[in-house]
Amino acid sequence: MSWVDQFDVVLVSPRNPLNIGAAARAMANFGFARLTVASTYGPHWEEAQAAAVDAESVLKTARETATLAEAVADCTLVLGTGTLTYRRPEQPIVPLPELGAIVAAEFERGGRIGLVFGPEKHGLTREDLSYCHRLVVIPTQDEQPSMNLGQAVAVCLYEISTHLHAAETPTYHTASADADSAALERVAELVEEAMRRAGYSPRAMREANRHDLRLMLRRMQLGPKDARRMLGLFRRILARMKPESKQGGQT
Amino acid sequence: MSWVDQFDVVLVSPRNPLNIGAAARAMANFGFARLTVASTYGPHWEEAQAAAVDAESVLKTARETATLAEAVADCTLVLGTGTLTYRRPEQPIVPLPELGAIVAAEFERGGRIGLVFGPEKHGLTREDLSYCHRLVVIPTQDEQPSMNLGQAVAVCLYEISTHLHAAETPTYHTASADADSAALERVAELVEEAMRRAGYSPRAMREANRHDLRLMLRRMQLGPKDARRMLGLFRRILARMKPESKQGGQT
Repeated sequence: MSWVDQFDVVLVSPRNPLNIGAAARAMANFGFARLTVASTYGPHWEEAQAAAVDAESVLKTARETATLAEAVADCTLVLGTGTLTYRRPEQPIVPLPELGAIVAAEFERGGRIGLVFGPEKHGLTREDLSYCHRLVVIPTQDEQPSMNLGQAVAVCLYEISTHLHAAETPTYHTASADADSAALERVAELVEEAMRRAGYSPRAMREANRHDLRLMLRRMQLGPKDARRMLGLFRRILARMKPESKQGGQT
Repeated sequence: MSWVDQFDVVLVSPRNPLNIGAAARAMANFGFARLTVASTYGPHWEEAQAAAVDAESVLKTARETATLAEAVADCTLVLGTGTLTYRRPEQPIVPLPELGAIVAAEFERGGRIGLVFGPEKHGLTREDLSYCHRLVVIPTQDEQPSMNLGQAVAVCLYEISTHLHAAETPTYHTASADADSAALERVAELVEEAMRRAGYSPRAMREANRHDLRLMLRRMQLGPKDARRMLGLFRRILARMKPESKQGGQT
């Protein structure tokens, strides 16, 4: 399997279909093939084509998901993109010039990468970023930090492509990749259910705790086996827990 | 003087005004300020604004010239951009990842750089490229080489900006920069006139010889003093030449 099949470009709720086309074009320019649009309102693929010069094949095989979680379900390394101007990120930061090395290392581990771009207006939300292991920061000027979506995609893919082609064609091992995002979500669900039944969080704090849990699970860099172990453990714990408790104690 | 004032982005005959705006936006993102549009049909600045989010200042100070020669008149290093797919360049090639180092070196010499982008459809012509010292090649896929104009500008400026900011702020000397393009053109004009009067070229070959002359003058890397010397010399030669000769001999 070539690394091309191991790399997804994910656009979250893009507003302008021409930007989808522009992203597809940049992908074709730099040798990437898998595009996913994660959006609750269906993307206008036909309008996107106008900007996807010579990149029809990318659009033709593009996927559509309702949520970012679905889009990155089979990814072992999910990388959000953005600037630091308007956010204080909760995950490790990767300056764009260092992205190539990180991508190459993940490919060598046999991992699968999702590179995620937010909507035009405000970029990825804190909620979106909670599905990301790292935040890739494009070094733009503080005065004009916000890039056009198609240009941001082009710049990131150029950086990765340059790095991958500068090195020798790498060989891929399939031993030690991280668990994929779907596995982490299953773990998170069981842990949350356990927290809920244990009355761990006051109602007002649940959303915040769920958010922190997602971040934590990604910091931990669980392997697939670790994820299976945690799933097994929490299934057992839940089997022994009462449906719900009003007290704050654990079982 | 900051390096920002020493760097021009030049768009040759852009068709779509949104691409002018997109170029301006990328310039603002990466800290560049001087934009020139070289075009015989006037650019639609108002339409360009729609794509120039937060980059109004770049558009406001943008220049408009009728020819590429005027646009790069005060540049000491003119860099064309493009791919190798449809052209066999006559000037040295710079792979984009090496552009940063070349730009930094030129700034250190106190030079002034013009980075030139061709029109959307076909890119820079051979004629355009004859004003360029080098051709910067963006490493795109052979199957889909042609980039969107705004994306090409973004990728090039990202590369330069990353390089300039990675190094310490350089200090600028003003000793050994090359002659600017206007000086080279004045030299070329005098040399051509001398060739014409000497009956050097058959009529059918004049255009081709003029082209080769421009390339040669740029390969030579004349300093400003050299250019002045050549001008002085050819003025003298011309003063001694008859208006025109039908023979092939030199005076």
